[in-house]
Formats: sequence, C-alpha cells, structure tokens
Amino acid sequence: MRKIKCIISYDGTNFSGYQIQPKKRTIQGKIENALQKIHKGTPIRVHASGRTDTGVHAIGQTIHFETEFDLSAYNWRKALNTLLPDDIYVKEVEEVSNTFHARYDVVEKEYHYYIWNEKEFDVFKRNYAYQFPYPLDVQAMQKACSYFEGTHDFTTFSSAKATVMGSKVRNLFEASCKQNGKEIEFIFRGSGFLYNMVRIMVGTLLDVGQGKLDPETIPELLEKKDRRMVGETVPSQGLYLWQVKYE
Amino acid sequence: MRKIKCIISYDGTNFSGYQIQPKKRTIQGKIENALQKIHKGTPIRVHASGRTDTGVHAIGQTIHFETEFDLSAYNWRKALNTLLPDDIYVKEVEEVSNTFHARYDVVEKEYHYYIWNEKEFDVFKRNYAYQFPYPLDVQAMQKACSYFEGTHDFTTFSSAKATVMGSKVRNLFEASCKQNGKEIEFIFRGSGFLYNMVRIMVGTLLDVGQGKLDPETIPELLEKKDRRMVGETVPSQGLYLWQVKYE
Repeated sequence: MRKIKCIISYDGTNFSGYQIQPKKRTIQGKIENALQKIHKGTPIRVHASGRTDTGVHAIGQTIHFETEFDLSAYNWRKALNTLLPDDIYVKEVEEVSNTFHARYDVVEKEYHYYIWNEKEFDVFKRNYAYQFPYPLDVQAMQKACSYFEGTHDFTTFSSAKATVMGSKVRNLFEASCKQNGKEIEFIFRGSGFLYNMVRIMVGTLLDVGQGKLDPETIPELLEKKDRRMVGETVPSQGLYLWQVKYE
Repeated sequence: MRKIKCIISYDGTNFSGYQIQPKKRTIQGKIENALQKIHKGTPIRVHASGRTDTGVHAIGQTIHFETEFDLSAYNWRKALNTLLPDDIYVKEVEEVSNTFHARYDVVEKEYHYYIWNEKEFDVFKRNYAYQFPYPLDVQAMQKACSYFEGTHDFTTFSSAKATVMGSKVRNLFEASCKQNGKEIEFIFRGSGFLYNMVRIMVGTLLDVGQGKLDPETIPELLEKKDRRMVGETVPSQGLYLWQVKYE
C-alpha cells in the first residue's frame, strides 16, 4: 500500500461541511467518490487534518488516503481534478511514508478570518467574508489579540456543544489583526484549535473593536473557563483553513 | 403614477441571466416578484438598461418601474432589499420624471472584464473572472484597445446570432487594459454595445496578448465586418455591467 498526501482548496459555500454525511453534498464525500471511480468501484477512505463546518473555506486543507495504485504525483493530481467538482481543487500531491497521518501528525494549523467592514451590503462578499457595518477600533483588537497568544485553557472560547474530552489547553503561536482598506484580516496559528474556537475569539474581538469590552479583560475571560462569558460565534463564511503544517 | 429608478448590483452566478423566463431563476423575475408582493398581488413590470446573460454580474445595473404607491426612496430600498434574495441588492433608489426610461435614455454604459492570469486554478475566482493560464503581453493588448476607441461599425465584434436590425455603428469612449498583479482588467465605456461585443473584443485582445494577432490588425478586422474573422467569445463570469449613465 502507498500513502498519498494532498493539499486541497475548496469554496465551502455549496457544501454541508467537510465530513461525509448521507444525502448531503460534502467535501469528503466528493473526494471519496472521485477516488472510488479511480479505483474502479473500490471504496477509499480519506483522512483530513480536521473537519470544517458548512460554509467554511480552505486554502490549504490536508488529506491522506491509502491506495494500491501506482500513479505519479502529477497523474494523481490530474485524475482527481478531472473528477472533482469545480469548487474543490487539488493543489499538491505527494507520496508519503506509511506512518504519516493527516490528523494526528499536525504540528501547526493556521486559520484566517475576514471581516468586510462597510455599511453597504456587497453581494460579492456575502459568501466570502463577514459583512460588519459598524466602526471597529483595529488597534484595540490588535491589543486584545496579543492576550490570546501563548498557552491557555480556551474553554471560554470553545463551543458549549463540544463533546471533546480531555484538555482544552491549546498553544497559540500567533493571534493578529490587520486592516487592509475595508477588509480586516485575523490570523490565528496554533498547535490545535477547539470546536468553534476561532469564530468565538473573533466574536469577542468584535466586542472589543466596538468598545463593548476592554482588551485587558481577555486574560480574566480565559481564566473564567465559561463559554457564557463571551459574545456570539461569528458566521462561517468569513473563516478559511489557511494551511496545515507537519514535522 | 410615480416612476422609480433603482441602481442594483447582482452576483450573476446563480441566475439564468437578467431577463424573465418561465421556470428560470432570473434577476428580472426576482425583482418583479418582490414588487408584486409590495403591491399586494398586482404585477409590476420592470425595465432595465439592457439584459445581461447567464453568469454576467452587475455593479450598477439600472432599472425603473411605475407605481401608485407613495414610499420614500429609503423605504423602497428597504422593502426591496428585505424581499430580494441575497444575490441581488438595491444600492440606490430615486423618484424620477415620468419621461425617464432606463433603456432608451442611456447615454453611456461601462463594462469591466476580469482575467485571472495564473497557471493554477483558483476555486474562489471560478465564478468571478476568466482564469487564463498563458502569459499575456499587456502592452500589446493596450495598444490594440486604442484601435477600438472612437466610432466604428462593430459587426466583426458582435454575435452572428444577433438579430438586431439597424446600424451596428457604436461609439466607444474608452477601451483600456490594466494589470494589477495576476488580475488583468479591461474597461469599456461607450454609447451602446452590440450583443456579446465586449466578450468578443476581449477574446480578440487575448489573441493579441498571446502574439497570435498584431495590434495593428484591429482596424482591418473592423473594416471586414465579418464575425468569422475573429476569435472566441470569452466566458460570461468575467463580465461586469459596471455603471449606466443618463442625461
């Protein structure tokens, strides 16, 4: 058996998220379907670095699968891109060692979140950013971002619905916020992320940007370990899984 | 009766073009449907500056309709945007004189066409630009653009399927081409445009950009008045009706 690693990009707009579900249009479903065609009907399981929710996009999601087929990286890429719909694209293919695992071997994940900060609705942004009409204090949000960096228990900033057992301690290497005209870009890099963590952090940062919350309260909120302490989860269409790093 | 003029924007991706057609999702269909709801069931006819094809976008399409209702511009805009789907947006509303006509009173129309000039396919550009993987000589295309400016018979650059009678002479105030990184932007401003004219001109400009055609041949091609002389019609998703001007 050979193990194939792929870096893929997708426009999450018309998918019910990454994970395969009966009768739903999912990214995993489309990829497994393409692989099954290549393997003349044999089902092939695909493993990703993690799931993404409905509407969330990916610039560099990473997956792997096992195969008995001996194709070059070039031919895997070509065969998959021919069979996949035009909202999924395989950017890179590489044969990897049999010990590699797209989920368990992750050392860093990077997410970006985009706000379109403009009063007027823009039809072209509706699926690709969160359109936020009120003025935002970017400097205050930058300050607040810095308190997220480092190793913390992120219980306050994870979905109360999350059923994950074990530690909610995560290490954020970067949390930053930058304005480019009407666009505000948030970048988060870390060893791992809890369910909805980026979207809840951005929701809280928007409270800071509107002056509803002081940047200095972030450490206290982290200490409370209570999801009810912070604001809303921002919508999925502003979120991009940017890249996944391995050893 | 009052006459209401609206400037609207739409993402053409999920529409079968502007013009109303039975059982198809069209921009005109959605607007007339919203107006009929506002008018408690009375059908209201909408007139646009012109049609746009399937997949073509609008930043500033202009429409008008007649109504017995006396709403403020603010309330018309609000009522329409509440009832319209999120891929159509009413940007401006204005009450105009009873002699105004969105189609017959046009003095200038502006179209933009976007090329994404990059070898790798980008899922986020697929509905919003024409992805063209081969190198292009922007200077040669700029030169060729200049030959389109002025008053010419554009028969060579209009669809052979067009059934329009009368003159194919049009006056182009501007034809230009500019590179911004991987994006190439074409701007065309004129008194009027023939069916598919922008998309055929851009197809020809891409032949120039690839060195298949000399910029100096444009005047000859115009003189031939024969659609078969020039290259293909570029796809609709790169085309934007940018603005429409009136007296």
